Amino acid sequence: MKLALPSRFRDHLGSLPSHANVSWFSNVEQCLDAVVDADVLWVGMGTPSRMTPVEITRAVQAGPRLQWIHTHGAGTEHHPLALYRQRGLLFTNGSGVSAIPIAEHVLMMMLAAAKGLPLLVRAQERSQWLSQRVTSAELFNTHALILGYGALGRAIGDRLGSFGVRVTGVRRRPNGEPGVLGLDEWRSQLPEFDWVIVAVILTRETQHLIGASELASMRSSAWLVNISRGGVVDQGALLVSLQRGVIGGACLDVTDPEPLPVDSGLWTLSNVILTPHSSWSSTHFDNRSALLFLELLEQFENGGPVQNSVDLEVGHRVT
Amino acid sequence: MKLALPSRFRDHLGSLPSHANVSWFSNVEQCLDAVVDADVLWVGMGTPSRMTPVEITRAVQAGPRLQWIHTHGAGTEHHPLALYRQRGLLFTNGSGVSAIPIAEHVLMMMLAAAKGLPLLVRAQERSQWLSQRVTSAELFNTHALILGYGALGRAIGDRLGSFGVRVTGVRRRPNGEPGVLGLDEWRSQLPEFDWVIVAVILTRETQHLIGASELASMRSSAWLVNISRGGVVDQGALLVSLQRGVIGGACLDVTDPEPLPVDSGLWTLSNVILTPHSSWSSTHFDNRSALLFLELLEQFENGGPVQNSVDLEVGHRVT
Repeated sequence: MKLALPSRFRDHLGSLPSHANVSWFSNVEQCLDAVVDADVLWVGMGTPSRMTPVEITRAVQAGPRLQWIHTHGAGTEHHPLALYRQRGLLFTNGSGVSAIPIAEHVLMMMLAAAKGLPLLVRAQERSQWLSQRVTSAELFNTHALILGYGALGRAIGDRLGSFGVRVTGVRRRPNGEPGVLGLDEWRSQLPEFDWVIVAVILTRETQHLIGASELASMRSSAWLVNISRGGVVDQGALLVSLQRGVIGGACLDVTDPEPLPVDSGLWTLSNVILTPHSSWSSTHFDNRSALLFLELLEQFENGGPVQNSVDLEVGHRVT
Repeated sequence: MKLALPSRFRDHLGSLPSHANVSWFSNVEQCLDAVVDADVLWVGMGTPSRMTPVEITRAVQAGPRLQWIHTHGAGTEHHPLALYRQRGLLFTNGSGVSAIPIAEHVLMMMLAAAKGLPLLVRAQERSQWLSQRVTSAELFNTHALILGYGALGRAIGDRLGSFGVRVTGVRRRPNGEPGVLGLDEWRSQLPEFDWVIVAVILTRETQHLIGASELASMRSSAWLVNISRGGVVDQGALLVSLQRGVIGGACLDVTDPEPLPVDSGLWTLSNVILTPHSSWSSTHFDNRSALLFLELLEQFENGGPVQNSVDLEVGHRVT
């Protein structure tokens, strides 16, 4: 078994099986060398500079023996899924690895929105003791819709539950689970929610999942929270909705494109909390990514089903 | 039964018993009139301007028939406890009424500290997409000490639990409850904690409960969270500890004095998140305060023990 792995994770992969023959790479050229006789390629943003779609395609084409491509990211939109399909490759992603930091980030943004924390931060910067709070809303007793109710959605939901927030999840296969809706059920219920949280990955199916009509269906006090990909939301429609008070506000960790252009109207709206695609960021990321890979490797070598396999037709995980 | 009640809560007290004879007041002069033949006085910050200790004393002295004083605040440090004791009055407070918003505020501040939200807010103000996050800590797997483990402490603890935070409470009477320490047990364990959360009320006993020696015992990465009263912490010692990196940082909703003077060094430290005693603030405050009072009134009229009775020797609730 020959593995081509990003050296960034080397320190956390000490317990690789002894029969694993690893070529480590830390840039694209090294990757192209390492992949020549490799069975397994771990590709993605593990290299110092993120690999582009073209570079990923070149790497896969340079590895005729490849059986399995792994990426530690959750998004798959920059991967050549058609090529993987054509080559019959197994493709796994890092879905779930960042559930904890992202769920924490979501709760932070929601609380900051409810209590107007940005204004308090700016007052502190001016050494100013605000005598009146601008907003004193609570999470308690509100109702949240979580689009995408896998590992991440549930990590968010569990935390919201402890705040007394009623949670409704949405997944492709709700399987009759209470409090979980299917893809054709949530739109009509949008007026019920105080929070609409986007936790799906970006695929052809989820592109602009939230557009003008969904925003118009939301309560005028409701907030949109997006920590998946900017493209899941029609950002032009969102900007207009925010400016006109169609919805209460938005917590955005992702935008379309990224970085968000300096002249975007989203930067300066008082009902927008914007963070720079940093919700996944965690001091534990590399270690958790390595632990997941070791698990998947064991499953792969045992010939059984491999967790986190991506459906190459649509781009999300096979569940 | 004659009641002297602040008119601020009138709209929420529609279900007062029909035999209750109420005099409403909205300022100190009206209060002094209302209390003359009253059995019950609800006093405190319910009037447009907060009543001072001297005004409270005058009001109580003006009501020779008074049996019960109620305040909707949680702190009792500005009440004439010696006078209440001497007069044999029942004294109840609003302890627990603000548990939900304060617990939410605590979680907000802790998450903002872990993830450096103030820096992200300031970057948004400059329309700047930060490419690197300054801190990416998690609440997950950390350990929190909660000083004061009543309704509020537990509301904080319940939410922390959903984040995978291990919680240890401290109360005067731990009663052998697992994970709860007595007053003489927590100091020696201070080096164990990532968070020290102050949720006790200010009494003679808790004045400067956290001083130089407690701060020195904390981990250099640990954060202090204070949402009770500024006087529970020796603020001079805290400032020095923060400046010298003795502890990681502080989330402060309360200071000593308030407002915090403009020239205080706390305003500008990057490891301090400061909010203006606003954690209790909630759109539900008046309604919840009224509901609590109605409950206490029923208990009082039934002659049984009344919830939220304050121990007049030390100032905290009788538990």
